[in-house]
Amino acid sequence: MAQFMDVHTSMQGVTPEALLEAHRADLEIQGEEGVDFQQAWGDPVTGHVFCLSEGPSAEAVQRIHERAGHPYDEIHEITVTA
Amino acid sequence: MAQFMDVHTSMQGVTPEALLEAHRADLEIQGEEGVDFQQAWGDPVTGHVFCLSEGPSAEAVQRIHERAGHPYDEIHEITVTA
Repeated sequence: MAQFMDVHTSMQGVTPEALLEAHRADLEIQGEEGVDFQQAWGDPVTGHVFCLSEGPSAEAVQRIHERAGHPYDEIHEITVTA
Repeated sequence: MAQFMDVHTSMQGVTPEALLEAHRADLEIQGEEGVDFQQAWGDPVTGHVFCLSEGPSAEAVQRIHERAGHPYDEIHEITVTA
């Protein structure tokens, strides 16, 4: 398993309810790809949303995000933490 | 207090030890600006490091990061989470 931080850059105006709904849509199907979405942080002003997850690959994370209707714009594999 | 995700984009090759040392340098002085750095996630390949913090302002976060030797490249105020 690897850890990932994926980034969405065009979610300007995202509301708490919309982010929760988007996150729930991921959670509902994430098991089909062995992905575990852990947390999401959003800035409605800049439109950035950061999603922390664990999964087998960046592609698996993207497949879930795409099926849930919100593909990421970039992804980073997290191998160092502090 | 607000929550922030700041992003460094040029930390290619960052090691676990280097990230820990950078984080500790923030922690040592963060109290002077009322900032609380909570966690940092890094990808040595893309050079991205994401820092989650709480503090009075984005400028306060930057002052600590600058004094510790690693100013952020961008920052986002987190007002929605899931």
